[in-house]
Amino acid sequence: MRVAIIGATGYGGAELVRILHQHTAISEYTLYSSSQAEVAISDSYPHLTTISNQKLQSINIEEMSKNSDVVFMATPSGISGELTPSFLENGVKVIDLSGDFRFNDPDVYETWYKKASAPREVLEKAVYGLTELNREQIKNARLIANPGCYPTATVLGLFPLLKNVAVDLDTIIIDAKSGVSGAGRKANIGTSYCEINENFRIYKVNEHQHIPEIEQTLKLANSNLGPIKFNTHLVPMTRGIMATIYCKPLCKISEKTLRELYQHQYDNDRFVRVRKMGEYPATKEVYGSNYCDIGITFDERTGWITIVSVIDNLIKGAAGQAVQNLNVMLGIDEGTGLYGPPVFP
Amino acid sequence: MRVAIIGATGYGGAELVRILHQHTAISEYTLYSSSQAEVAISDSYPHLTTISNQKLQSINIEEMSKNSDVVFMATPSGISGELTPSFLENGVKVIDLSGDFRFNDPDVYETWYKKASAPREVLEKAVYGLTELNREQIKNARLIANPGCYPTATVLGLFPLLKNVAVDLDTIIIDAKSGVSGAGRKANIGTSYCEINENFRIYKVNEHQHIPEIEQTLKLANSNLGPIKFNTHLVPMTRGIMATIYCKPLCKISEKTLRELYQHQYDNDRFVRVRKMGEYPATKEVYGSNYCDIGITFDERTGWITIVSVIDNLIKGAAGQAVQNLNVMLGIDEGTGLYGPPVFP
Amino acid sequence: MRVAIIGATGYGGAELVRILHQHTAISEYTLYSSSQAEVAISDSYPHLTTISNQKLQSINIEEMSKNSDVVFMATPSGISGELTPSFLENGVKVIDLSGDFRFNDPDVYETWYKKASAPREVLEKAVYGLTELNREQIKNARLIANPGCYPTATVLGLFPLLKNVAVDLDTIIIDAKSGVSGAGRKANIGTSYCEINENFRIYKVNEHQHIPEIEQTLKLANSNLGPIKFNTHLVPMTRGIMATIYCKPLCKISEKTLRELYQHQYDNDRFVRVRKMGEYPATKEVYGSNYCDIGITFDERTGWITIVSVIDNLIKGAAGQAVQNLNVMLGIDEGTGLYGPPVFP
Amino acid sequence: MRVAIIGATGYGGAELVRILHQHTAISEYTLYSSSQAEVAISDSYPHLTTISNQKLQSINIEEMSKNSDVVFMATPSGISGELTPSFLENGVKVIDLSGDFRFNDPDVYETWYKKASAPREVLEKAVYGLTELNREQIKNARLIANPGCYPTATVLGLFPLLKNVAVDLDTIIIDAKSGVSGAGRKANIGTSYCEINENFRIYKVNEHQHIPEIEQTLKLANSNLGPIKFNTHLVPMTRGIMATIYCKPLCKISEKTLRELYQHQYDNDRFVRVRKMGEYPATKEVYGSNYCDIGITFDERTGWITIVSVIDNLIKGAAGQAVQNLNVMLGIDEGTGLYGPPVFP
Repeated sequence: MRVAIIGATGYGGAELVRILHQHTAISEYTLYSSSQAEVAISDSYPHLTTISNQKLQSINIEEMSKNSDVVFMATPSGISGELTPSFLENGVKVIDLSGDFRFNDPDVYETWYKKASAPREVLEKAVYGLTELNREQIKNARLIANPGCYPTATVLGLFPLLKNVAVDLDTIIIDAKSGVSGAGRKANIGTSYCEINENFRIYKVNEHQHIPEIEQTLKLANSNLGPIKFNTHLVPMTRGIMATIYCKPLCKISEKTLRELYQHQYDNDRFVRVRKMGEYPATKEVYGSNYCDIGITFDERTGWITIVSVIDNLIKGAAGQAVQNLNVMLGIDEGTGLYGPPVFP
Repeated sequence: MRVAIIGATGYGGAELVRILHQHTAISEYTLYSSSQAEVAISDSYPHLTTISNQKLQSINIEEMSKNSDVVFMATPSGISGELTPSFLENGVKVIDLSGDFRFNDPDVYETWYKKASAPREVLEKAVYGLTELNREQIKNARLIANPGCYPTATVLGLFPLLKNVAVDLDTIIIDAKSGVSGAGRKANIGTSYCEINENFRIYKVNEHQHIPEIEQTLKLANSNLGPIKFNTHLVPMTRGIMATIYCKPLCKISEKTLRELYQHQYDNDRFVRVRKMGEYPATKEVYGSNYCDIGITFDERTGWITIVSVIDNLIKGAAGQAVQNLNVMLGIDEGTGLYGPPVFP
Repeated sequence: MRVAIIGATGYGGAELVRILHQHTAISEYTLYSSSQAEVAISDSYPHLTTISNQKLQSINIEEMSKNSDVVFMATPSGISGELTPSFLENGVKVIDLSGDFRFNDPDVYETWYKKASAPREVLEKAVYGLTELNREQIKNARLIANPGCYPTATVLGLFPLLKNVAVDLDTIIIDAKSGVSGAGRKANIGTSYCEINENFRIYKVNEHQHIPEIEQTLKLANSNLGPIKFNTHLVPMTRGIMATIYCKPLCKISEKTLRELYQHQYDNDRFVRVRKMGEYPATKEVYGSNYCDIGITFDERTGWITIVSVIDNLIKGAAGQAVQNLNVMLGIDEGTGLYGPPVFP
Repeated sequence: MRVAIIGATGYGGAELVRILHQHTAISEYTLYSSSQAEVAISDSYPHLTTISNQKLQSINIEEMSKNSDVVFMATPSGISGELTPSFLENGVKVIDLSGDFRFNDPDVYETWYKKASAPREVLEKAVYGLTELNREQIKNARLIANPGCYPTATVLGLFPLLKNVAVDLDTIIIDAKSGVSGAGRKANIGTSYCEINENFRIYKVNEHQHIPEIEQTLKLANSNLGPIKFNTHLVPMTRGIMATIYCKPLCKISEKTLRELYQHQYDNDRFVRVRKMGEYPATKEVYGSNYCDIGITFDERTGWITIVSVIDNLIKGAAGQAVQNLNVMLGIDEGTGLYGPPVFP
């Protein structure tokens, strides 16, 4: 397997390097960057000193197509939509970490991302890479649309409920919180230390681009689902997402039943850990790992279900899930390179 | 005015000292502590070096009653319920920062706090000290039940809506987040640095003791209100609370109308700042101050209202509001000692 | 007194606004900005909502000279050197928070700041505004060169020793640590949250521009002083500086003698707090205040003195000391507007 | 290899579990705790859910001796000194992460740790487990005294200089900074979140128990070394140590020569990374890894050398180095289980 990473100087790209370094089936990967070609990756990321001494290479589709079997696109939205079709034509598989191929409908992308969409005929080739949901299709995919970080946490948390329990669809609220690394490695006053530290803020109210991705995916669980309320907050921490999910079941349901339902759903998914009764996951408990941990409860007093779903946004929410999908495509152990336990404390 | 503070070694007590130090109408205050009597307050809190050289005194109700006009109870729940009746009998006014006098019904206290309640006849004398709601009653009160931190943020954020707009009461969700100082100055593994830093967690799911306080107070806005869903999360920061509040109006309502309603409600309340259209407050923007900042929006796409309400939990959520109430009781400018702008960054 | 602030959108400028808002002798101040003219200060800093509704004005020296008695220059280095001479000619006093007027010798500025210096004849008019050292000269100054943050902590910590105790000048080491706000409000990858959080780094090794300022000032205590070793580190926090200072006395000296010497030196300086035996200040203990706290010890085992000096870099290290100097110039109580105790926790 | 861990509920113990989980030569390890016997490790550390479902067992030396080849002691000081002699007698090898066997001279231990020392005849059997220094002796050791976190960073940073360069031994200053996890998992007001966050403090001035360990080890490089000045600070972060080391060479020396000397020294030590000219390591660049990164410079202007040495205190400073030593004892690849790159950001 010859692997290429485009956008290696972003946080998602650096995390791919870290994971592939521990991947027993990938011995070679090459790093590409449009902005920092000729720079050593260890100059951009000194923590990689002696781990990778590669120089970043500039992007040349034809050249890369000859030397790569799979390309990871760890790029901002808008780039992959342009580059990917040529790679596919050249017979190179693509795992896209951006939002460019996540939607069936190009209009949805253009409405929420405010950019031109990739062509519909290429969108149709993409498989949505939420591994636990689409494992079979991923096996034979040539183009993976790797899910967004919030949709990963949210859909893994909510899908089993919507599929199996009659809930009042009008009551679904997703109150999501994220660390700052989701914003990428950028010079920006809003994500500078002094503006984030000892501060908690809400952002992109009513308009986060992950909303339509969540809706599209959850409709596979219940096609009656309408628009959902999803808000995002910025937590003064680097990594981690928590989605606190609320909804009302149409009938009373016991916590025990709920947990069994979730455990059954994720019985064969080693990276989803349904936590025991009365235990709710904290983000640090999946830090540095590919796990998604889920806690669930039913409040007898109010009739509300609360689901708590946490991931490391850079791993299960980006690079880790991308490698998990690569493993599925290769037909090898899905967890290869991803077995490191969470780093705590 | 001779002022006494019981529980001066907690964070709420230390914040009272900081505020009273800047209070032009209070020249003297005396500090009491059951656990650290004879210790200098500046040994417990070196930041107060040269600001207060007082030694903490042990609690003696008769002695204190002779020397005090008002007593602040900055104590854990359960203490004030025992001490306060004697102070009142001795003609001393009490401002209680704990939860001991916040409920009309002693059973509610005993159910949620799992402790014996203060006697019903003393509860009846207490005025709930959410200044903006109860200013007139506070003027003549002899016992103030200073509100909890979460209820302050939540009620100020939700009251005007419930009072003025027809909402689906079954859809109200309050997803609250707090810094760690709300847990007090205690030795506790759960609030130790390594367990909190770079971590975000949910806690006391379905069972936070502030739930009944919020319900009791919001019922004054709409008596049909039933049990509400209220969840609390711990943010890796010291100070600050955000309540993200969701509910559905029964009819469509414009954001402009909502804002005007809130502005009207808080027109004469200098410590409530209704933020302009499209602007949502972050917790750091009230850090170190007595402000409660509120943002509000209506999402046309989903039909949900989102209200964002933030306070500094130690100030508007505790010591600041206590002094604000003292000022109202004294008939002086409500903001005396509280005019320091937020400390940013 | 009519006061103008140039550079009000930086952190130092915002802190001036916060302090002047609490200043009983200044009822009016006007805000200027070259980059954000016409923007409301509360749009740039929402924490100032309702506190100041001023629009930032563009800089016009003639206009400003008519309407101002004193101008604070809260600008990056290089700006004040250009603007200040005209203000002085127009009879306006200037308090410069940048490094432009701190050196007697223009060559030193040009070597370390790598910029053209202000003219020597204007430099000669400047009084170095370390209040505790130069109070008498400040009274009649027309141009104050407000000290840098590191020099303030370092010089207050080391001056009494160098002046009064025979030390081996070749052994002086200053190992300094700072929060991130010293870098200003700028979009910069190096000071973005994810690069700073849970990280501790050294920076500008051997070349920090505050080195010559420290040397020039300490030579007033002991003219034999040669080049000193001064290194700076970035702490994952917003505010605060600690200088850990090491040197060897030529003779043994008791800790008690050292403390008495420091207490005597700062007897009349309310903003310097010499901490008691065995107590060393932490940065949070001066957070949000104008204090400089100093701890000092002599290690019998090794013969080294350690001095620990802490300030809030934005207050005693910038805006607070600037107002302290203004107060001295006005002949009013030096602490006016600066009496707020540290904000802890 | 049958491995036992005593003290598995501390941070060092949990980190051992994380590392051994990735260790290809260790398939079994058993966890012991005096305080939490019968508790599942995943109840104490939920991040280990599904990774280890072991219940903690109570300590029984005879039982353990039958079932273990090596015991890791991840215990507070004072415990290993009592337990270890019996394990050794029973033919079980011990790797002790505490300070109990680090000194040749029991008096030194008793002076600095203020506890009874292990018997001198057992001390004599211990090999000091700074892998890079003592690899040959470790191979055949039966008892490893795993180094302290500060000594690891300091000695790796300073040893090559003292061994190879004539320096003025009276000028050595070690100004060390650590994250909070070094204090262990304990309920303690001093390490609670609100006391540490946004705060920087110095602690154990003149009296840190790692001082004699550093002195004893550095004397192997230069036997003339006298008492050294070593101070420690607490950084608001969880993991990471930086030692900033100062000293003056007796003759001028070029930065290039210094670097070559260090590179030569660590040529075969994969976990020590000597950084290139002008680059200084930050703690996050070794976070979650077993690396020690070193930067070094000579300041022509002042004649001082500065060495910057960083480690992750829980890995190279504790559990990682312990496993590195185990690997050396086993005669397998020294890096087994330790190849995970640093986790950044």
